[in-house]
Amino acid sequence: MRKGVLMEGCLGKSGLRFRNPVAILETAGVAGKKEGQGPLGTLFDRIREDEYFGGKNWEDAESNLQRETLGILLQKCGVRAEDVGMLFAGDLLGQSVASSFGLKEYGIPQFGVYGACSTCAETLILGAMAVDGGYVDLAACVTSSHFASAEKEFRFPLEYGNQRPLSATWTVTGSGAFLLGRDLHGAKAKICGGTIGRITDYGIRDSMNMGACMAPAAADTILKHFREWNRSPEDYDKIITGDLGSIGKRALLDLLKERGYDISDRHLDCGMLIYEDNEQDTHAGGSGCGCCAVTLASYIIGRLSEKIWQRILFLPTGALLSKTSFNEGSSIPAICHGLVLEAAD
Amino acid sequence: MRKGVLMEGCLGKSGLRFRNPVAILETAGVAGKKEGQGPLGTLFDRIREDEYFGGKNWEDAESNLQRETLGILLQKCGVRAEDVGMLFAGDLLGQSVASSFGLKEYGIPQFGVYGACSTCAETLILGAMAVDGGYVDLAACVTSSHFASAEKEFRFPLEYGNQRPLSATWTVTGSGAFLLGRDLHGAKAKICGGTIGRITDYGIRDSMNMGACMAPAAADTILKHFREWNRSPEDYDKIITGDLGSIGKRALLDLLKERGYDISDRHLDCGMLIYEDNEQDTHAGGSGCGCCAVTLASYIIGRLSEKIWQRILFLPTGALLSKTSFNEGSSIPAICHGLVLEAAD
Repeated sequence: MRKGVLMEGCLGKSGLRFRNPVAILETAGVAGKKEGQGPLGTLFDRIREDEYFGGKNWEDAESNLQRETLGILLQKCGVRAEDVGMLFAGDLLGQSVASSFGLKEYGIPQFGVYGACSTCAETLILGAMAVDGGYVDLAACVTSSHFASAEKEFRFPLEYGNQRPLSATWTVTGSGAFLLGRDLHGAKAKICGGTIGRITDYGIRDSMNMGACMAPAAADTILKHFREWNRSPEDYDKIITGDLGSIGKRALLDLLKERGYDISDRHLDCGMLIYEDNEQDTHAGGSGCGCCAVTLASYIIGRLSEKIWQRILFLPTGALLSKTSFNEGSSIPAICHGLVLEAAD
Repeated sequence: MRKGVLMEGCLGKSGLRFRNPVAILETAGVAGKKEGQGPLGTLFDRIREDEYFGGKNWEDAESNLQRETLGILLQKCGVRAEDVGMLFAGDLLGQSVASSFGLKEYGIPQFGVYGACSTCAETLILGAMAVDGGYVDLAACVTSSHFASAEKEFRFPLEYGNQRPLSATWTVTGSGAFLLGRDLHGAKAKICGGTIGRITDYGIRDSMNMGACMAPAAADTILKHFREWNRSPEDYDKIITGDLGSIGKRALLDLLKERGYDISDRHLDCGMLIYEDNEQDTHAGGSGCGCCAVTLASYIIGRLSEKIWQRILFLPTGALLSKTSFNEGSSIPAICHGLVLEAAD
């Protein structure tokens, strides 16, 4: 039995809490044309009419999107790439090529991260650990998704003209980037800690209904979070999931109600914030790594920065399927990581 | 200008050094039949004759391989899954399905990591940061690769009977798992710190010659490490790369010689340790996430544990390509992370 004595305050006992909340110093959000026409359109740092982002194919487009977003971030805060100690990045493509190709020219020590559409939370938790742990002064986190590269990667290339069921979500073309550091003075918001998700699998096999796959993971992480942090819905101004969409949202609210929690008065979902559902024909809402990343960067952090919200629980959700696992008839496991974000001092 | 003052000892100035070296409490290594017939065969915890590992397809096989390896690890050290605070895991498959499907039943808070064949190093660095930073008492790290699933993912399904050039490496069917903690007493080895790689791209496009793609990344990280840590080859008993193979090894030694360093008397490559090259027809050597993971778990840590080596520099290398990026004619970027491993006290 080599196991050490479990420390008080360690994970599993009371969750991941930072000794000193980590500052979100700056954010950048870049989105595609469709997202630009949505309700958050005026908040993005840049909207690109060209869905190829100047690239020669869809993967290239997403790489350019990530490169551009990180570039805007560094420019906004006047930091050089060589001053960023670690870069945490990921996307949805096989072998995360959008991140590898998109960010290589910055030359920042880089960690590739994969958590499907929960990747944004993973990068922020790891980046915040690196800063709070004292290993680095500045860490950058970048995540992206692209409608066309995602359809090609997971379902059907656009050229096939496949018809989408009403339960399907629309992968957001967008990228969010964040610079983390220690100095809370003038910061946009702060990361106080979080709850790291475990993989849940309810046996659902429908890749056109990702919300239903991910809702149980979100419920699991929220319940674990309330338990670990000894908190309840009332402790948060908003509880914001990543990309459950309208069907997943309903499932989540039902699952929590069964366990005695009603979060319906404070629940938001990035997938339902980013498009005007009745007009933009996205069916169940937006999804993808970039959905919650760009919504966090361009909308949520703004609400915290303006002190309209004091504290939120941010919960990106990910469906851990691949084209291969789906075609082989496997179920779709899911994961959700939670972050406690507060207005900076 | 929001950037804080760069701390002494922070990354980029003097590398990633842990305040207290992190203990590698236990390791587990599981390999396939071919690897079992190689020079390290007697050292693996388990060798499986069935290349499907009881699964119904190659992805399933690799998931079962990971599940089995983590199971053996926990069993060897008498730790329950619920006592492990964080799990860092990855593999080579699209959307890392071997890890998601293989490890979901453990219910451990999980971070998916992707760095191609450098993933083992990434999991160990992040896991060690989580332990040293005080966020968790015990962290587990698991990585795998499987010959058949990797050929299907990156090149040609085995059924095509594709002929492999002499520069090709053979993806190792194997998995290595590690339990990290604080208690150095009785530990197998310790992690003192490392050097986090940045992505290099020399424009090479040949996915049948991965060694040549990855050698520049290894050279870059080694040179950065010597600079950051103010060290030279003589400070290490061995300098061990992940899976450069015979061609990549030659390129690495040449690149370092040009910069004034001769590491030829102490360089080893896991890809060249795991197979008996003249007899096993693997061409340039072994490769894959599992190559360095299982070699570290079953051979390298043993040498440190027996104090035959006191200090090594361990450098898993990764080629960041995908089938799509390769077919679109893109180059193959690469990355290499370095870990300073020492015999435990």
